[in-house]
Amino acid sequence: MTRIVLDAMGSDAHPTPEIAAARAAVERWKDPLVLSGPLPLLEPRLRGADLIQVKDAPEVVEMADHGASAARGKAESSMAIGIDLLRRGQADAFVTAGNTGAAMTTALLHLGRLRGVRRPALTALFPVRGGRAVVLDIGANADCKPEYLVQFAIMGSVYAQVVLGIPSPRVALISNGEEPGKGSTLIQETHPRLADAGLNFIGNCEAKEIYSGQVDVAVTDGFTGNIFLKTSEAVARFLVDAIREQITAGPVTAVGGALARPAFRRVSQMLDPGEYGAVPLLGVNGLVFIGHGRSDGRALLNAIAAARQAVAAGLLDALRRALEPFLSREPSGA
Amino acid sequence: MTRIVLDAMGSDAHPTPEIAAARAAVERWKDPLVLSGPLPLLEPRLRGADLIQVKDAPEVVEMADHGASAARGKAESSMAIGIDLLRRGQADAFVTAGNTGAAMTTALLHLGRLRGVRRPALTALFPVRGGRAVVLDIGANADCKPEYLVQFAIMGSVYAQVVLGIPSPRVALISNGEEPGKGSTLIQETHPRLADAGLNFIGNCEAKEIYSGQVDVAVTDGFTGNIFLKTSEAVARFLVDAIREQITAGPVTAVGGALARPAFRRVSQMLDPGEYGAVPLLGVNGLVFIGHGRSDGRALLNAIAAARQAVAAGLLDALRRALEPFLSREPSGA
Repeated sequence: MTRIVLDAMGSDAHPTPEIAAARAAVERWKDPLVLSGPLPLLEPRLRGADLIQVKDAPEVVEMADHGASAARGKAESSMAIGIDLLRRGQADAFVTAGNTGAAMTTALLHLGRLRGVRRPALTALFPVRGGRAVVLDIGANADCKPEYLVQFAIMGSVYAQVVLGIPSPRVALISNGEEPGKGSTLIQETHPRLADAGLNFIGNCEAKEIYSGQVDVAVTDGFTGNIFLKTSEAVARFLVDAIREQITAGPVTAVGGALARPAFRRVSQMLDPGEYGAVPLLGVNGLVFIGHGRSDGRALLNAIAAARQAVAAGLLDALRRALEPFLSREPSGA
Repeated sequence: MTRIVLDAMGSDAHPTPEIAAARAAVERWKDPLVLSGPLPLLEPRLRGADLIQVKDAPEVVEMADHGASAARGKAESSMAIGIDLLRRGQADAFVTAGNTGAAMTTALLHLGRLRGVRRPALTALFPVRGGRAVVLDIGANADCKPEYLVQFAIMGSVYAQVVLGIPSPRVALISNGEEPGKGSTLIQETHPRLADAGLNFIGNCEAKEIYSGQVDVAVTDGFTGNIFLKTSEAVARFLVDAIREQITAGPVTAVGGALARPAFRRVSQMLDPGEYGAVPLLGVNGLVFIGHGRSDGRALLNAIAAARQAVAAGLLDALRRALEPFLSREPSGA
């Protein structure tokens, strides 16, 4: 039995997608599931769903909330109450489509870090040629040290291996040029350490190697990773809008666009983060999965599936084992 | 009369595009033009082009050359000989579609920096909603200090104003979030200095503000700028390939794609760096313009036009004036 807690108030359209996903999940897997959120709001909408239990949480973290402040200020939020069930051993994984910064801070407050971990990382899965690439950190740590990046690489590699099923994940360091001598001081100091970390480290990479499917785990500091994420989103939006505008500008191209619509639909499905549902916070002492704020019921069902898979694969224990070499080391100055 | 030197051996297909562009330029503007490159190769191909003079340069910097080494090792290259004409006051601007790193180092060796400039920057123009955005530095300085970024902002703003004709360029600092408190230490230290720099500074920005046309000059360190550039290119390539693949996958969508082709052509024209020709190295003591290695004759003609415009607008003097406040300051530790 896998015990999932789902934040009922995470997604932009909460709680409707969450309730739909919870109902679909208990029907599919026949395991009980906990929804954290305001009881008066949720209970009337869960008639007949016997496997769904509501854990009352009167407060809601909004997307516009400052992550860390919300995590500290809203002790009775659906996020705090839900994550606390992990701490108390009453659930195996927590899933939310809510405020990422708040989820990170709440997880740190209630669960702490995995032993030996210097900084937890935010992870994202990017659609690339032939599959998906893991990129981390995509925003939790704007300033990083080489050791943080080495730990991100180890955690990302374990996740790719254990959950995504890639036997020997190709790990690369995002830099401005592939040559080992390239990059900022941080990159140049991190490169040799990654080469010695016992991973399948293939060297520095640029965005084109990631998007052409040559990298399974791309490692970077949270500032650069965030630039990579936001630039990817902005360029995709810019191009899709430009193509749409040009296609609808004339009658012939408009007909062509209508005929080609199924092709465009398949491409936008490829770009849809709901396809993979959710990714874990790596480095906190518990399985916390974060989906996109725009998640619908289907995306949240995929998110629950991703969390269940991580539980079944023993992701947390695999991370603990991989991080053992760091347990005996002195902190290097954080 | 505007005296342009064109590197005959810069582009991937050199010297054919360069010769075509040189012939078209002298026909259009009736000004003499110098081509730097191997005399025996060029002269037979320039019969009847009386306004084109060849400046003999036996060596060629290849795209694969390490920029700084090539700049130092190949003293007789078309790049070195061409840029040296600027130093000697025999030309107003140098244009190349060659190795960017080599052009930067060669310019620094032969021309030096503008007085007061701490680090020159590589500039790029990005297609965005409603026009173009200037982004700098896109790769010359992987590690930056706040003062460098302030100077990049000033130089980029002057370029946007004087050459691109934007009256009060909106300058923003690329960060991971728009709030002033967001970002790496570098961003947090740079933000207040930019606010005090006498520019039209609109704060931090993310990629979406750049691509939606809300920013004229986006300032960043060379590492982040390079990630922005490479990610933009890689995502555009990935999306265009994915759309093509999906469209050609079935007969109906293929017909649609054929009908919509003019729309796609307009979008790829929008993405074509040859449309704006070339951008200046900002901060070196001379006008050095760099075009894309894949430039054809038309792109190089646009590059010459961009350089002529900068000469006519007095870009170099405008930069000198804008940098005057830095002349009296002590270097802050570079």
